[in-house]
Amino acid sequence: MADESLFDFLHMEIVSHIYKEQQSSKGEMDNKDRAVCVSVLESMGFRVGQGLIERLTRDSPSFKDELDVMKFVCKDFWTKVFRRQVDNLRTNHQGTYVLQDNKFSLLTQLSSGKQYLDQAPKYLAFSCGVVRGALSNLGMDSVVTAEVSVMPSCKFQVVVQKL
Amino acid sequence: MADESLFDFLHMEIVSHIYKEQQSSKGEMDNKDRAVCVSVLESMGFRVGQGLIERLTRDSPSFKDELDVMKFVCKDFWTKVFRRQVDNLRTNHQGTYVLQDNKFSLLTQLSSGKQYLDQAPKYLAFSCGVVRGALSNLGMDSVVTAEVSVMPSCKFQVVVQKL
Repeated sequence: MADESLFDFLHMEIVSHIYKEQQSSKGEMDNKDRAVCVSVLESMGFRVGQGLIERLTRDSPSFKDELDVMKFVCKDFWTKVFRRQVDNLRTNHQGTYVLQDNKFSLLTQLSSGKQYLDQAPKYLAFSCGVVRGALSNLGMDSVVTAEVSVMPSCKFQVVVQKL
Repeated sequence: MADESLFDFLHMEIVSHIYKEQQSSKGEMDNKDRAVCVSVLESMGFRVGQGLIERLTRDSPSFKDELDVMKFVCKDFWTKVFRRQVDNLRTNHQGTYVLQDNKFSLLTQLSSGKQYLDQAPKYLAFSCGVVRGALSNLGMDSVVTAEVSVMPSCKFQVVVQKL
């Protein structure tokens, strides 16, 4: 479907724009520059996630607990944003959740060899922000990170910040 | 649908990011700065349009002439990207086309009063690029501009560049 590719293509453009602009102002990029890029993409994702979850939960009943929220994110939210459900959700019941997507939509366009493994974080920052933004609007402050060991499978770790 | 809003939200974020980054490096923005922003957004759109049309026309028969291409863009392409068909297509049969969309998807989120009319170009640059990119991949080099007189209606003018 082209409307799905629309988002994918636009996402690619943004990633490349933000890295290019950082590089052109600095010459060579070091880890700090890369962190700036990740942070810009993450904040964009945060605001997009907030907007999306607001629309999606307009007609939803309220959630009974944290796990209930996470299940909604893994099913309904994930399907709308990343076009499939999370394959596996694990939790230690102490505020840490691991969401595994075996075929993460924003990685499927990249080659699945090991060659581009080090490029993966670029393409995950926005999505981490989307998840954090959605959770934040549902009342859960969290830290969201992502990890890829074999493309295009991806693990998101959500650590809920207790007040 | 959230997957549609996904693109809309992301588009909003990009527009705001690009204007902010230009402003922060220059302080006050003048016309030249605004032109830089428009041009960055337009080139992003161009590449996205190229990618999209490539997918969309994969199974299409070839087109018999310029008008045939324009009709495809107004119907199939427009529906996939902007979620409706163009309402009106006019041409002078000398390479100039006017595509009118009475409810342009990227403007429907803005208030329809006159208040934000001067903000409209910000939100049209990317789309002009998308159209130009699509046409370019179908072998038509063109200049695409957009004009809004009453929100959320929008007129795109395509002037085909003859070799």
